[in-house]
Amino acid sequence: MSAKHLITKSDYKKFLSEFDTFLFDCDGVLWKGTKLLPNVQQTLNFIRLKGKSIAFVTNNSSNPREEYQKKFMELGLDVKLDEIFNSSYSAALYLKNVVKFPKEKKIYIIGEEGLEKELDRQGIKYIGGTDPSERRDIKTEDFEDLNLDPSVGAVLCGLDLHINYLKYSKALGYLQNENVLFLITNSDSTYPASGGLFPGAGSCSAPLLNASGREAIFLGKPNPEMLQAIESKFKFDKSKTCFIGDRIDTDILFAKNSGIKSCLVLTGISKDVILKNTSNIMPDYYMEMLGNLLNADDI
Amino acid sequence: MSAKHLITKSDYKKFLSEFDTFLFDCDGVLWKGTKLLPNVQQTLNFIRLKGKSIAFVTNNSSNPREEYQKKFMELGLDVKLDEIFNSSYSAALYLKNVVKFPKEKKIYIIGEEGLEKELDRQGIKYIGGTDPSERRDIKTEDFEDLNLDPSVGAVLCGLDLHINYLKYSKALGYLQNENVLFLITNSDSTYPASGGLFPGAGSCSAPLLNASGREAIFLGKPNPEMLQAIESKFKFDKSKTCFIGDRIDTDILFAKNSGIKSCLVLTGISKDVILKNTSNIMPDYYMEMLGNLLNADDI
Repeated sequence: MSAKHLITKSDYKKFLSEFDTFLFDCDGVLWKGTKLLPNVQQTLNFIRLKGKSIAFVTNNSSNPREEYQKKFMELGLDVKLDEIFNSSYSAALYLKNVVKFPKEKKIYIIGEEGLEKELDRQGIKYIGGTDPSERRDIKTEDFEDLNLDPSVGAVLCGLDLHINYLKYSKALGYLQNENVLFLITNSDSTYPASGGLFPGAGSCSAPLLNASGREAIFLGKPNPEMLQAIESKFKFDKSKTCFIGDRIDTDILFAKNSGIKSCLVLTGISKDVILKNTSNIMPDYYMEMLGNLLNADDI
Repeated sequence: MSAKHLITKSDYKKFLSEFDTFLFDCDGVLWKGTKLLPNVQQTLNFIRLKGKSIAFVTNNSSNPREEYQKKFMELGLDVKLDEIFNSSYSAALYLKNVVKFPKEKKIYIIGEEGLEKELDRQGIKYIGGTDPSERRDIKTEDFEDLNLDPSVGAVLCGLDLHINYLKYSKALGYLQNENVLFLITNSDSTYPASGGLFPGAGSCSAPLLNASGREAIFLGKPNPEMLQAIESKFKFDKSKTCFIGDRIDTDILFAKNSGIKSCLVLTGISKDVILKNTSNIMPDYYMEMLGNLLNADDI
């Protein structure tokens, strides 16, 4: 199936009329690095004025959502905290609303403050994470007894800039019990910084998958559990929802996996994929850039 | 093909006469934990008296070989350092003799002292490893510039009890250059300690495989590169060499992968596999325990 290229005013008007909810990826769609893409502010205002719901979906798990909201604000985009779904928020929602994680149980976290904050908000108890007592070398006595907490009911792993052998050992210890759930915020193998590629949450969690031999529930795009988590908080009609993203292998695949329509913008990483038709995964629509949606405006 | 069960004196005599070199796995064959298995000392002496060469092959990479030799000595087994091949020694031999790693290049190590010592012995330069300046948290400026050393020509990863995000990031940085070799001491996903299972070298290296998307050369059993490394130092006729081990999935598979004959002992982990015939990988021979080889003695 080939993707419909949105070109004319009538294409854009029809596209807009088909949906009442738009979910957006951020980097490569709204901005690139620290630079807003053309007409993004006006386009988001226009979509809101048309009475559509919008939300923003990112795999980032290490920063609290407030930090992410700040980035929107700094770029002149007025966005509510409730409209931002990152993978740590989704993990917390998934545990609370989908899994219905028992109140008396705890999560063992490998990850940063962002994860802890979202679990706090959902009233879910946790250990590990940024606890300074676990930011140390493993000791001889740990190999005899890791003093595992029997109330741990899930291991949740995200990007952790303070990973160490002790944390991996403890998480592996918990995962030996097959009743302990195993969640990973997202499967991103790397993330780009100005100094090159750095290990992402998918790579931080790789030792646990390898050592435990277990499968995990991945929350981020392209996994449909991310949409399940969003749906548990933000009500929308899936048949009238479109995901707008710039990556075939995360955004568009996420929409396919979740059973919603998708639109690719060519301002990001997958431009060549669609122009050269080199992927088996195709969006339902594509347009040069998000700002083009203003073409649907009658004025 | 089914394995030949060694039972009678004539079986053992014939078995012994077919080989002039025996390679041994250690734990589960010579000892279990800290306890020597029956008649091991006498059996090794008997094999030596018959004029056979022997060597010991283990995946352990974190301890220097001297430590391992000490364990033999403490159990009353007189073994030369040159007869012990662990995966860090094999990695060093592989780099020196098989790859012919250039003298002017360096290795970036993720691993412990054992790896450094073996590279030192082979006159191979390295950075990383136990360097205390890398046992720290990653800093903001590292994300801009990791100050990678352009003379690094290989990344070598083994079990590292001091792994951290900075080391993974540096190793990933080096691996972006496809001319940089990627070696892993062994693929063991876990290793058992009294407090349970802990992440092995295979798990410690999983973030690098995941983030780089590259394949690595694994040195330890069951990979045939281990035998290539041993052969580069210890001369023997492969057609007259038998590997004696207790694990189907490492020892026996290693022999198959390397094109040598194998004998399973039932004192270790794979006893049921052979008795219930549940594996596609079968040794050429099996016997209840190594000490049974004394049956071949005429006295």
